[in-house]
Amino acid sequence: MKPMTRLDQQIQFILEIDKLKSILRRTSLINEARRENSAEHSWHIAVMAVLLAEHANEPVDLPHVIKMLLVHDIVEIDAGDTFAYSDVSKVDQQAKERVAAERLFGLLPTDQASELQALWEEFDAMHTPEAKFANAVDRLMPILHNYHNQGGTWHENGVTLEKIVKRVSPIGEGASQLGQLTQTILDDALARGLILS
Amino acid sequence: MKPMTRLDQQIQFILEIDKLKSILRRTSLINEARRENSAEHSWHIAVMAVLLAEHANEPVDLPHVIKMLLVHDIVEIDAGDTFAYSDVSKVDQQAKERVAAERLFGLLPTDQASELQALWEEFDAMHTPEAKFANAVDRLMPILHNYHNQGGTWHENGVTLEKIVKRVSPIGEGASQLGQLTQTILDDALARGLILS
Repeated sequence: MKPMTRLDQQIQFILEIDKLKSILRRTSLINEARRENSAEHSWHIAVMAVLLAEHANEPVDLPHVIKMLLVHDIVEIDAGDTFAYSDVSKVDQQAKERVAAERLFGLLPTDQASELQALWEEFDAMHTPEAKFANAVDRLMPILHNYHNQGGTWHENGVTLEKIVKRVSPIGEGASQLGQLTQTILDDALARGLILS
Repeated sequence: MKPMTRLDQQIQFILEIDKLKSILRRTSLINEARRENSAEHSWHIAVMAVLLAEHANEPVDLPHVIKMLLVHDIVEIDAGDTFAYSDVSKVDQQAKERVAAERLFGLLPTDQASELQALWEEFDAMHTPEAKFANAVDRLMPILHNYHNQGGTWHENGVTLEKIVKRVSPIGEGASQLGQLTQTILDDALARGLILS
């Protein structure tokens, strides 16, 4: 058998990540019964980052943010999506995701495997200005979805305000103005009975 | 009523483009019966551009390519997706897309509306190195999908080799090595009867 070329490895990875389109999140599309998948979600938050970058608390390298958002969910192909408010042990999930990252990014040429692994780790660590802003965008999106879906997954799963407030705290850390918007939305959702107090 | 702030306008646009997740392309997911939507396709080709940029014929501004790929299909929310091998008049479709661009990008603050409009026009014009490479990636993807789906939309619609060859010509113009890969795939697809000669 011929050894794989660099391009063969890249194409193999590109074909493999088609599977992210079949990983379902809990969130539904706005005003549609269908649940959202992680591939289309990744597209949505990447566009969101392009448009909202001016609101980041610190200056960010936007292309780096976009790359992080495009690849941060790929590990879900093997590890599955975890509902933000689930009781699944974070330690178990992180262990599954590390194995997933090794297999999936490992399909790529070594330099690109390292690049994607680093982007994924940076997103999760939430230390750099880029990771903080990327996480802000990723967490704001389901707030918008649920608010415009009559409570959406908050309502379906009886999620309390306390849990939501904890979950959204990185939004203000990445972008104060988006944190304020989140607060306004949550206040109104509470007043309208979309969230349990 | 309070006038809309800049952030209000941005959020309104972000909510509106959720609809791209309901615009179906002809192509199916690899080994899945479900048809692909334009939002998840946009994500897929953006990741593809990150990984294959080294193969572009001319040096490209990768962040610019990615932005172009993320926004180039948004007009389909109003104008619909056109099958690559359909007989729909290109002039009619372009007219519909211009109206769509005006309405959709017009939801944004003026500077961002102009930025997205310019990205979309640049992609369609295929003149800059970035647009040539972006189009190469966008056209290679369905070739990969059809090849790994036993002929996919070629087979279902009886698309001839002549039409496919015309459709894929921009791939080599944007990236020679990807053009060669396309040729190898088409030769094999023809030999295996996945394409009509």
